[in-house]
Amino acid sequence: MKLNTNYDSLEQSYLFSTIAKKVNEFAQNNPDKKIIRLGIGDVTKPLCQSVISAMHKAVDEMGIQETFRGYGPEQGYDFLRIAVQNYYKNHNVNLDLDEIFISDGAKSDLGNILDIFDKDNIVLVPDPVYPVYVDTNIMAGRKVVFASANEENRFLPAPDESVKVDIIYICSPNNPTGAAYNREQLHKWVKYALKNKAIILYDAAYEAFIEDNTIPHSIYEIEDAKSCAIEFCSLSKTAGFTGTRCGYTIVPAALGKLNKMWVRRQTTKFNGVPYVVQRGAEAVFTEQGQKEIKVNINYYKKNAKIISDTLKELGIWHVGGENSPYIWLKCPNNMASWEFFDYLLNNAQIVGTPGAGFGKNGEGFFRLTSFGSYENTLEAMERIKKLFK
Amino acid sequence: MKLNTNYDSLEQSYLFSTIAKKVNEFAQNNPDKKIIRLGIGDVTKPLCQSVISAMHKAVDEMGIQETFRGYGPEQGYDFLRIAVQNYYKNHNVNLDLDEIFISDGAKSDLGNILDIFDKDNIVLVPDPVYPVYVDTNIMAGRKVVFASANEENRFLPAPDESVKVDIIYICSPNNPTGAAYNREQLHKWVKYALKNKAIILYDAAYEAFIEDNTIPHSIYEIEDAKSCAIEFCSLSKTAGFTGTRCGYTIVPAALGKLNKMWVRRQTTKFNGVPYVVQRGAEAVFTEQGQKEIKVNINYYKKNAKIISDTLKELGIWHVGGENSPYIWLKCPNNMASWEFFDYLLNNAQIVGTPGAGFGKNGEGFFRLTSFGSYENTLEAMERIKKLFK
Repeated sequence: MKLNTNYDSLEQSYLFSTIAKKVNEFAQNNPDKKIIRLGIGDVTKPLCQSVISAMHKAVDEMGIQETFRGYGPEQGYDFLRIAVQNYYKNHNVNLDLDEIFISDGAKSDLGNILDIFDKDNIVLVPDPVYPVYVDTNIMAGRKVVFASANEENRFLPAPDESVKVDIIYICSPNNPTGAAYNREQLHKWVKYALKNKAIILYDAAYEAFIEDNTIPHSIYEIEDAKSCAIEFCSLSKTAGFTGTRCGYTIVPAALGKLNKMWVRRQTTKFNGVPYVVQRGAEAVFTEQGQKEIKVNINYYKKNAKIISDTLKELGIWHVGGENSPYIWLKCPNNMASWEFFDYLLNNAQIVGTPGAGFGKNGEGFFRLTSFGSYENTLEAMERIKKLFK
Repeated sequence: MKLNTNYDSLEQSYLFSTIAKKVNEFAQNNPDKKIIRLGIGDVTKPLCQSVISAMHKAVDEMGIQETFRGYGPEQGYDFLRIAVQNYYKNHNVNLDLDEIFISDGAKSDLGNILDIFDKDNIVLVPDPVYPVYVDTNIMAGRKVVFASANEENRFLPAPDESVKVDIIYICSPNNPTGAAYNREQLHKWVKYALKNKAIILYDAAYEAFIEDNTIPHSIYEIEDAKSCAIEFCSLSKTAGFTGTRCGYTIVPAALGKLNKMWVRRQTTKFNGVPYVVQRGAEAVFTEQGQKEIKVNINYYKKNAKIISDTLKELGIWHVGGENSPYIWLKCPNNMASWEFFDYLLNNAQIVGTPGAGFGKNGEGFFRLTSFGSYENTLEAMERIKKLFK
């Protein structure tokens, strides 16, 4: 029996384990110091009441003979697909139900979608990037090239006409940088993809944080994008579903064979999302559900603004913080990412994430997130002000 | 961009759509006739009360700041892994927690596990078989060879020493045949795998239906199996989780690199099973939970026995019906599978599944299941008795 030797080419990431180790050491040596964690990449607010009620109701149904549900459709129940369809209509995107696939999260489908592509494709990934894009392709033996995201392009690289690639990853609003493409910028990517017969894998996991009208919530707001893009979205950050697991993937009919291949992949290798979870997800899309999740999103966005405003005041270069829960800053005084991590931990007891952990271009940058509490975010910014004023 | 052309080699299965079409036609032409469906491959009993209570409690936790859970460990929460560990102890199998992976069902992991194997492996699959084993390998371009399950070996093929394969699928108790390997038979497969450095992918999804002491619940009851087998199990049929989605996969440490590769696969392409579902699954393994699920399993097994006893009485050759919810019978009077399907529908208004739909060797055989109601199963058997006495 032969193993998949591509796994040998994967790089081990010690990013979060190294952070944990450093923080633990500091805490042990400084038991009196209050550490504030702004490195959190997970939501912290509980599920909203509409979701909780819907899930209770669904659990009850599962305990009664007449309303019990066994195997559901692998692509998701129509009640949820219709809710997603209506949600897209808000952004003037019309989708057929057959184009909507309910998933257990964007991460799973971003990896699984690669099943339907040949090994022999060149993959373009921005640097810095969510590590999963790179790792899933290395596992399959694909060649990965990088689009340089940097200070000059405000971490929003444009297509390079001199390079021909087949599969393009775009995450907007971006993880880890928080930067978000506007219509015009995204249109350039769609044009490039159509010209090069490439496919865009569009990660829209943070779309619910967008407030700027010039920034599309869906790539399908761009003309002809249905002919070159698959979109992945998730309720993880939108509605606090990181531990509840539900998202949706759009594979437009205009992509022809790809839609049918994805149906085949999902019906063969997946059995759908739990009924109870799908009912919870449905509640997110109700009028009341949308009101409730906005309260949480606004809480995080308020934190993001506090961070962003502080950095502006201090003249620290950054992107994100608007339209995103992430703030991506240039380490002051030309510090390296880990150097700044240590400096911030030792001098202000603030924990963030070194940008170097997300790719070569992340060196010299640093990520803060808005998923902490309001009080802690405020206190952290006061400490930073003292440090850099 | 190039597509995965292996998908072109997949055969479309029209099995269940053809059945539905034939049944609908019959129903329209015979509105007065009561059709009894014994082709059901899904559970019909609701979730047991312990599971319902546990899920309600978990839903409540998700709505409260202090007890809310975000991202969980991809491999599953320890509370559930420990429950699985203890369950295995009942069968004298000792597992480390690191060997236990909580999944969203056996189907997903049976497909996903193939990620860690090279394309260049020869796969052995019994014929007839659960179609997913074949399709997932064809999607990856692997060569599939078949082990002939037939009347002579009572649909339990033994290893053929003259054939060298790398990946071996075993499903016991089997879907679709209901046949189950005893210790001695399974030991031969383990010996073959060790000798040929092959890996066994052992599908134990129906283990909860076993009552015969000579039939192992887990392949790890066989000596040295930890050095050559990965086991997949599911609560789908055990506890009615087909629409709730939870199972577990065992990748023993003795398999060396495979365990670490699976960790890497899961942490990169999966985000774990919903917290609420894991709490429901945990309840299955409590003393009370086990009592409650036994009531449902015994209900199905009683149906299976009624079917099996009727066939015995009529002298119709069959396997399964004991240790399994499935009964696999030889079509009377040498009828072909679809011929018998039509005959049974037209003359007794009973719906089953033509064996030919599960592979070449299924021709001339037929699957009945015990997931119908007791009353309907009884009535169906009365009708069959009238037809074949």
